[in-house]
Amino acid sequence: MTHVSTAHETEIVADPKVPLVRISREFDAPPEKVFRAHVDPALVVQWLGPRDLRMEVDHYDCRTGGSYRYTHHRGDDVFGFRGCFHEVRPDEVIVQTFTFEGFPDGVALERLELTALDGGRTRLVATSLVDSFEGRDAFLASGMEGGVREGYQRLDELLAR
Amino acid sequence: MTHVSTAHETEIVADPKVPLVRISREFDAPPEKVFRAHVDPALVVQWLGPRDLRMEVDHYDCRTGGSYRYTHHRGDDVFGFRGCFHEVRPDEVIVQTFTFEGFPDGVALERLELTALDGGRTRLVATSLVDSFEGRDAFLASGMEGGVREGYQRLDELLAR
Repeated sequence: MTHVSTAHETEIVADPKVPLVRISREFDAPPEKVFRAHVDPALVVQWLGPRDLRMEVDHYDCRTGGSYRYTHHRGDDVFGFRGCFHEVRPDEVIVQTFTFEGFPDGVALERLELTALDGGRTRLVATSLVDSFEGRDAFLASGMEGGVREGYQRLDELLAR
Repeated sequence: MTHVSTAHETEIVADPKVPLVRISREFDAPPEKVFRAHVDPALVVQWLGPRDLRMEVDHYDCRTGGSYRYTHHRGDDVFGFRGCFHEVRPDEVIVQTFTFEGFPDGVALERLELTALDGGRTRLVATSLVDSFEGRDAFLASGMEGGVREGYQRLDELLAR
């Protein structure tokens, strides 16, 4: 289990009991602002994923019962991602599904929770549940950690503007 | 692990490795017909759940990116259920989320697969994944097995009409 807990470090933990990844991080902005950066596609494209990928939104209807699809571009390579929003509770919770179109039968159930901290800061906890440990560990081994860390650094920068 | 494999018996298995329930059953109707009974709300209300509950559909938009909500009624008791459809592949696959509104933070990721068998029959495999063994085992202990078996008997009757 990875365990780093300095503020602004991204903690990424592989759950020992269930095929789930738990990502925790703090942000120097209140939950309302962190939430908006997750639901407004014009903001999402500015931070989601590593810097060397360009993101394009096909649709991004982040409300309970909505759905989304976006693509990441690097040179001529295109990576598509899609899912539906099970529940969106403003400033608090987003529960959604997630599929990488390169592996269309793999579906993750994701939950984002935002908690207000002192000083107008926010604690973000994001979990991703899949149906096998092999799938979870392949996801962790895919280099996703670097992309998540870099994405959250970009989100820091967006929130500071 | 429950293990019953006569045709028309409903097999309900608790996965030993991950917090998942797997339900398997055969039907004397082709996949197209079993699929239609899952996506058309006018048909769904005729079989989903035990006989002593009346089902009402709030909305049931069974397509990729759609969502649903329905209620089960027994006397004055009302039980609400809702979720979104991650993927609907005609006659083959439905991937959806599922929440019982009485326990709003519990979310299951469900996958239904239909496979054609000889003689115009269908094999149905339905999995339900949650994020803890405690939650999965509480779901199994809730009496869901009886409701699932009775629902599929009602579906047999509907398909035979």
